[in-house]
Amino acid sequence: MPSVSGGIVAPRGFSAAGVTCGIKRSGRPDLSLILSDRDATAAGVFTTNAVRAAPVTLGVERLATADARFRGILTVSGVANAMTGAEGRADNETILAATEREVGLPAGSLLPACTGVIGPRIPVAKVLGGLPGLHARLRRDPTASRQAAQAILTTDTRVKEVAIRATLADGRTFRVGGIAKGSGMIAPKLARLHATTLAFLTTDAPASAVGLRRILSLEADRTLNMVCVDGDTSTNDTIYLLANGAIGGPGADDDPAFRRAVGEVLERLAREIARDGEGATKLLTVTVEGARTLSDARSAARSVVGSTLVKAAVFGSDPNVGRIACALGYSGAHVDPTRIDVSLGGGPASLALITDGRPAPGLDNGGGAKVRSRLLRLTEVPLTVRLHQGRATATAWGCDLSYAYVQINAAYRT
Amino acid sequence: MPSVSGGIVAPRGFSAAGVTCGIKRSGRPDLSLILSDRDATAAGVFTTNAVRAAPVTLGVERLATADARFRGILTVSGVANAMTGAEGRADNETILAATEREVGLPAGSLLPACTGVIGPRIPVAKVLGGLPGLHARLRRDPTASRQAAQAILTTDTRVKEVAIRATLADGRTFRVGGIAKGSGMIAPKLARLHATTLAFLTTDAPASAVGLRRILSLEADRTLNMVCVDGDTSTNDTIYLLANGAIGGPGADDDPAFRRAVGEVLERLAREIARDGEGATKLLTVTVEGARTLSDARSAARSVVGSTLVKAAVFGSDPNVGRIACALGYSGAHVDPTRIDVSLGGGPASLALITDGRPAPGLDNGGGAKVRSRLLRLTEVPLTVRLHQGRATATAWGCDLSYAYVQINAAYRT
Repeated sequence: MPSVSGGIVAPRGFSAAGVTCGIKRSGRPDLSLILSDRDATAAGVFTTNAVRAAPVTLGVERLATADARFRGILTVSGVANAMTGAEGRADNETILAATEREVGLPAGSLLPACTGVIGPRIPVAKVLGGLPGLHARLRRDPTASRQAAQAILTTDTRVKEVAIRATLADGRTFRVGGIAKGSGMIAPKLARLHATTLAFLTTDAPASAVGLRRILSLEADRTLNMVCVDGDTSTNDTIYLLANGAIGGPGADDDPAFRRAVGEVLERLAREIARDGEGATKLLTVTVEGARTLSDARSAARSVVGSTLVKAAVFGSDPNVGRIACALGYSGAHVDPTRIDVSLGGGPASLALITDGRPAPGLDNGGGAKVRSRLLRLTEVPLTVRLHQGRATATAWGCDLSYAYVQINAAYRT
Repeated sequence: MPSVSGGIVAPRGFSAAGVTCGIKRSGRPDLSLILSDRDATAAGVFTTNAVRAAPVTLGVERLATADARFRGILTVSGVANAMTGAEGRADNETILAATEREVGLPAGSLLPACTGVIGPRIPVAKVLGGLPGLHARLRRDPTASRQAAQAILTTDTRVKEVAIRATLADGRTFRVGGIAKGSGMIAPKLARLHATTLAFLTTDAPASAVGLRRILSLEADRTLNMVCVDGDTSTNDTIYLLANGAIGGPGADDDPAFRRAVGEVLERLAREIARDGEGATKLLTVTVEGARTLSDARSAARSVVGSTLVKAAVFGSDPNVGRIACALGYSGAHVDPTRIDVSLGGGPASLALITDGRPAPGLDNGGGAKVRSRLLRLTEVPLTVRLHQGRATATAWGCDLSYAYVQINAAYRT
């Protein structure tokens, strides 16, 4: 599916803006709005953490309204609005209502999200002060998507923005756009409807809310739920998908091309989130083949990508293959330790790391100069694991563990 | 229970030795023997990792022999003897048999353990070359225990050695001694009979093998299984308890004082392992009170102690209390987010961190100078969590996440 420019505003009928209202000490953008010029159906998946931020609770409630139609997403970055009690909920309702009034929307038509430090309340006056500027900045051009994407970031080092164009079986062309925020506190729980990070998708295809929910859940499980940066599942994970039907015609949610397009945008965002993990110097991609079940494949892939010791070895370009086998062994997936094969890369140029559960020749005694030199060159480390237990396959995305991760998180607020 | 000197040889009838046979490039001690002068009953708990080292498989088999009696434990440090296939198993049998011959023991009377790099085979010739020296060094004095304890270390920075004296209900005095090795790849699975690290205990009390197994399982669950350094469950975790009955009289395994003494030694070793976690600058102790079930209490305590973000915040002495609530929220334990209380310390001098699920006053907006200055001073950070869901309680031990952890593990073999 071809990429197109425009990110979140590539689908017709969407506009976006991002501004600085003064929440972050850094002075970076912190208030973001995505808007549809007509009613849209919406679906969301959220963190499973029992300690939920106020915007998560509010978002769940708004989506649960029967036949609800939405017009956009308002995101505050810099504070999580978690552990803020009834006041935190009221704060979020206040800024949502004020934004709806500012832009001229019916009450209840915006969906909320927050990301940032847990504990502090939203500085409501600052947000209210920023709303006229946010409204004035709303645009449909690609810079608007980029500004909205910038304004949802925290410790991220780069904007995560994707848009693709695809065609339905009946010939209608549609677009799916997405922006995301990731970096730290990233480890979704492996279950349906469990999400990670912030990711917002728009599409101009029409779709029922039920269909959107099904597709978003399934595709988020396969993509964002397979990203692991540090093993901590956030209080604020929120993914929204808005479908405004601007291309006209009947619902697209039963057309496989629609699901594929949503999945493709989620997967590209997942890779970008992993690549930009806090302190990351390398993207780590682990594909497991031959697992007994899909659940096994996902557990095994996530176990390797999430292993602190594997991550540290990747940072050091150390072909310490025992750590990969170790992580497969404790993953909970069915493994036969004598039938594990692991290679660096999956194609003809791949290098064997583990063969039949043993270190590949040269790797059993601190050797592996060839593997090491390839690891040193790669900014993306692709591991392929073959378990020989069945036919299920899964991919997980992560990153290495560097000094910078420690630095960022030892001094996050100071 | 009073501490006594002598570590692993404090109980009567035990001797020990540790020597350098040349496995480690560093030239540090790498071969360790604990010996009883008479037959002992024994119990073991082992890693649940599906990728098991050869000595784990062998140890399980030897312990499973009906009415087996043992004379000691032979440990090789520097190589894990994991991912070494049938050759690795044969290597381990070879060095066990040679040691039994060297010391004049019946075949099958030693229990094996290994720790070190996964992949390489045991350099059998070096071990065989070291056996006469090992035999000659066997002593009952405290330096012998210390040498044995040194020879099982890998990246540890200090010896872990404990011994206590206690009294049975019938007045007999007995001793329990222990040595351990920890540091990295430490995260036991939360289940009965799942172990972590290397820990070897001796006692001169008499006990049945069945009683030993029960006590060791229960007390290891409460202690070593509650230590978390980096979330990776090793291929080699092995805990042995040898009871040689040198004090005479009937079995002590039904006497509560015996179980308490074994538990006390395991708990002290658990603390020492956590304190010496790779790169650790602070010991982190998390006690959860008021959980609905014991399983909930343990999950909650382990979740906080194992959270990468909590660990990084402790390293930076950052009172980022949201990360504690976040880790409780994803622990799987029943929590009411509005009824979580957390304090630094548990006594009258404790400082509130979280009250009714909200950051304690002053901690909600980057403040907390008092908490921060106390954190900076502490080398042991004790967190007390109250969930108000029931009466179950548990403690977990861990450490902070420092630059040194990354350094150690990015360059472990190089």
